[in-house]
Amino acid sequence: MDNITFTPVSVLGEFGLIDFLTKDSPLVSNKTIKAVGDDCAVIDMQGKKMLLTTDMMVHGVHFDLDYFPLQHLGYKAVTSSISDVYAMNGIASQIIISIAVSNHFSVEMLDLLYSGIKSACEKYRLDLVGGDTTTLGKGLIINISAVGFADEENIVYRNGAKKNEIICVSGDLGAAYTGLLVLEREKQVYLVDKDMEPKLDDYEYILRRFLHPEARKDIVELFSQLKIKPTSMIDISDGLSSELHHICKQSGMGAKIFEDKLPLDPLVISTARELNLDPGICALNGGEDYELLFTISQDDFEKIKNNPDITPIGHITDDDYGIKLITKVGSEHDLIAQGWKVFNK
Amino acid sequence: MDNITFTPVSVLGEFGLIDFLTKDSPLVSNKTIKAVGDDCAVIDMQGKKMLLTTDMMVHGVHFDLDYFPLQHLGYKAVTSSISDVYAMNGIASQIIISIAVSNHFSVEMLDLLYSGIKSACEKYRLDLVGGDTTTLGKGLIINISAVGFADEENIVYRNGAKKNEIICVSGDLGAAYTGLLVLEREKQVYLVDKDMEPKLDDYEYILRRFLHPEARKDIVELFSQLKIKPTSMIDISDGLSSELHHICKQSGMGAKIFEDKLPLDPLVISTARELNLDPGICALNGGEDYELLFTISQDDFEKIKNNPDITPIGHITDDDYGIKLITKVGSEHDLIAQGWKVFNK
Repeated sequence: MDNITFTPVSVLGEFGLIDFLTKDSPLVSNKTIKAVGDDCAVIDMQGKKMLLTTDMMVHGVHFDLDYFPLQHLGYKAVTSSISDVYAMNGIASQIIISIAVSNHFSVEMLDLLYSGIKSACEKYRLDLVGGDTTTLGKGLIINISAVGFADEENIVYRNGAKKNEIICVSGDLGAAYTGLLVLEREKQVYLVDKDMEPKLDDYEYILRRFLHPEARKDIVELFSQLKIKPTSMIDISDGLSSELHHICKQSGMGAKIFEDKLPLDPLVISTARELNLDPGICALNGGEDYELLFTISQDDFEKIKNNPDITPIGHITDDDYGIKLITKVGSEHDLIAQGWKVFNK
Repeated sequence: MDNITFTPVSVLGEFGLIDFLTKDSPLVSNKTIKAVGDDCAVIDMQGKKMLLTTDMMVHGVHFDLDYFPLQHLGYKAVTSSISDVYAMNGIASQIIISIAVSNHFSVEMLDLLYSGIKSACEKYRLDLVGGDTTTLGKGLIINISAVGFADEENIVYRNGAKKNEIICVSGDLGAAYTGLLVLEREKQVYLVDKDMEPKLDDYEYILRRFLHPEARKDIVELFSQLKIKPTSMIDISDGLSSELHHICKQSGMGAKIFEDKLPLDPLVISTARELNLDPGICALNGGEDYELLFTISQDDFEKIKNNPDITPIGHITDDDYGIKLITKVGSEHDLIAQGWKVFNK
């Protein structure tokens, strides 16, 4: 390999890397409707469309087994994967799992992992239809590919946002990130003094949001009941800022969002302050909430305006405007897509 | 975890582990026709059936980057995955890839990996429809999920073999395994004396079979042309013995195969002898040839008997008989499913 230039992967970042690696990939099947570049691939099924997505979780990158119970990890591996199907306005129906584990894992530990997986399958009505298991020198890796379905006319891509449409998010933001920070803090305390009991009782909601997140199937069902079809949608796995950039880039639009509209749980606000962080920054850049970010036409505003699960946070603008945050004091800032940036770790 | 029994995974083995972990997984979707237990899951698509499979390859377990060129690795990751679709008598059409890489990998190295992936996509007419990339402390992990299609009446499971049917294999066996052994030998020589040039010129066929294997799409196309539907089929990834056990177990049958019928390339025979191995053992237990093992009715024998790509090696018996190998001198031995047993490494 001596004669090959060495460009660190971090130069491109995850999304730049995917773009680079998948360039010059011609599509040959007339069944492939959408390949790389959205939450899921879309494959034609004579009527219904199939949605396909895959997600890999790596010990030391996506989770730390020191504080991540295996049952929760199994559950989260499933919900984080199927979240991509709901982000297309589809319903997930099957998952297929690959795991690589070191010999330090016993059958009982894997059984715990799978009990979490099965619990998520039961809750979301998914069939676990296959998989692959193999060994690994160290740690644990889980890959879940999920299959879902949607009628063609209901599929929502990232690229449909239009000027003046309302930008909304489901649930609240920043909870998983602050939960992670509390777990990291307690781990550090424990490493210094093994007799210290971790103080976690006061953080139940944000810990659950990080360790046992739900995917927003209920929002997709709500859209169906309310006869709303979002014009664009993405799930918030890398943080609101990053996801909003994806929607704007793919739609060729700009966006204006308001700091005082960001939905924050009181516990996120108090925990962020306790950690000397700005709660708004946690909401903008904290990932893994698995909420949905979507845009709707102004005509649909009446249908969602009093729904406690949906919060309008701004609107779509011309591309020229850029992507901006209006702070609580009214000043305007460019929104940087910081995201998780796993490649810089 | 102190209060939990520790059963090493190796006690169950890979297939025992999958059985154990996927027990009590009720199926909820009426679209799921076949879940765990065959080469692929089968999902109903109103007419056509979708086939879904996933495979994970781990550095240090499935490949050694000291001698595995990245382009070849990308190619093999694809062909080993889609081989499962052909083993259902289907045609693969889309793949979705997850990779986890350490920071020691450059963009250029990943580009080489992807050039192999794209080359396989071109050859097998596959669309690369998405994926996930992430970091890893050390090494490289590739997971490929493949989607394929087949008409319901053409799908071949592992469980359809019946008494007196003919057991056949495509191509020849043991080549990938002897190729691996030659690479391992040359690596050891190189580690002792870095000035030694590896002697690989005489082993081109078996090295190619290990480093750049093809999947037998052509055999599935041949079945279609010859109007043959095998009664059972599996791809040979873990070795003939292991795969024959799967077919017999799922079909509730026994089998008798003949050592002198095993298709062996002359280079496999000479290399095995050079390495002081029995060529027949290499053919029975060497994996990763990605040939197809299948059974056909006696009525179809005329259609394949002169085909150089297909070799009849024995026939299906009653379950009571067991699974036996008749050696060249006529003695009868129980065939042990040795396989790769990655969990014992």
